[in-house]
Amino acid sequence: MELLKQRILKDGRNLGRGILKVDGFINHQVDPMLMDACGQEFARRFASLDANKVLTAEISGIAPAIATALHMQLPVVYARKSKPITMPDQVFLTLAPSHTKGVMVELIISPEHLKKGDRILIIDDFLATGSTIQGLVRLAQTAGASLVGIGALIEKTFEGGRQLLKPLGVPIESLVCITSMEGDQIVFGGCD
Amino acid sequence: MELLKQRILKDGRNLGRGILKVDGFINHQVDPMLMDACGQEFARRFASLDANKVLTAEISGIAPAIATALHMQLPVVYARKSKPITMPDQVFLTLAPSHTKGVMVELIISPEHLKKGDRILIIDDFLATGSTIQGLVRLAQTAGASLVGIGALIEKTFEGGRQLLKPLGVPIESLVCITSMEGDQIVFGGCD
Repeated sequence: MELLKQRILKDGRNLGRGILKVDGFINHQVDPMLMDACGQEFARRFASLDANKVLTAEISGIAPAIATALHMQLPVVYARKSKPITMPDQVFLTLAPSHTKGVMVELIISPEHLKKGDRILIIDDFLATGSTIQGLVRLAQTAGASLVGIGALIEKTFEGGRQLLKPLGVPIESLVCITSMEGDQIVFGGCD
Repeated sequence: MELLKQRILKDGRNLGRGILKVDGFINHQVDPMLMDACGQEFARRFASLDANKVLTAEISGIAPAIATALHMQLPVVYARKSKPITMPDQVFLTLAPSHTKGVMVELIISPEHLKKGDRILIIDDFLATGSTIQGLVRLAQTAGASLVGIGALIEKTFEGGRQLLKPLGVPIESLVCITSMEGDQIVFGGCD
């Protein structure tokens, strides 16, 4: 998606060790118009999947997931990283390694909002190692829901997430793919 | 706003001790169409303020803030509760008591995204004691930005937040006001 690629080239920064700073338009300051365009593109790509719910993880997945869900006219569920007091005692919980924090984080979903028969489209900001998305998949499977597709704004192809998720047998769509971040470069390329 | 009031009556629940469960449509599962309607209403009410940025706090402020900012064609900044590695070492940081967690939480904003001269509209999900919003105001003031308005989806008038924030001298708009939550009741009323 050219719009997103150009924005990364303009405002993104390679901080080294595979870390891409996009906090001027995705995950601290957010450009809602860009997110809306990305959501529209996801809605187009996933139109035929008959999803009934968009699933993501707090925090930075929320903006692209809501934009996508608005265009698809679906609810969003975002997995919480700590259990709020408004949630029932019995929850779906899994652990996933945090890429940027270097620790394991919890992903928690209330059984009130993830059910057997749900057709789940996962949307997140990054597809890197795939471990957060894999955690969301485990939660969906535990609930008896079906996974129908996976979308990410930005894929870092060199971290292997697509290979990890491919056996799930669902469409995986990234709006831009970064194939290398050697030095201070950000190199875009094909997503496969 | 009748649409939001009806949704609270249908899907909200009074859990006691002033805690309103709205995690089926605002802060765990999100209804993006409802958020969009709320954002449109905020955009209408705050159209004349000449805001250049919407400010909120992660996590549950993100959905209404993005919806509002999309209708106003403005960027959103959400204060982080922990400092990600993509943020510079020098940040704006303040502490605010968490209503639902019973502890102090940090609110952190990068100086890259909050600047002198910014005209800030704060949007959050709840206006209760006003302490989170007051924390955001402190961050804006520290950055030399001007506060131009405050909006909340749901105000709990009996927690006194409006009285706390009134001296700031900016418009405060809540889409619905709850005046009492005695027993298991949810009583709506005027916002003043």
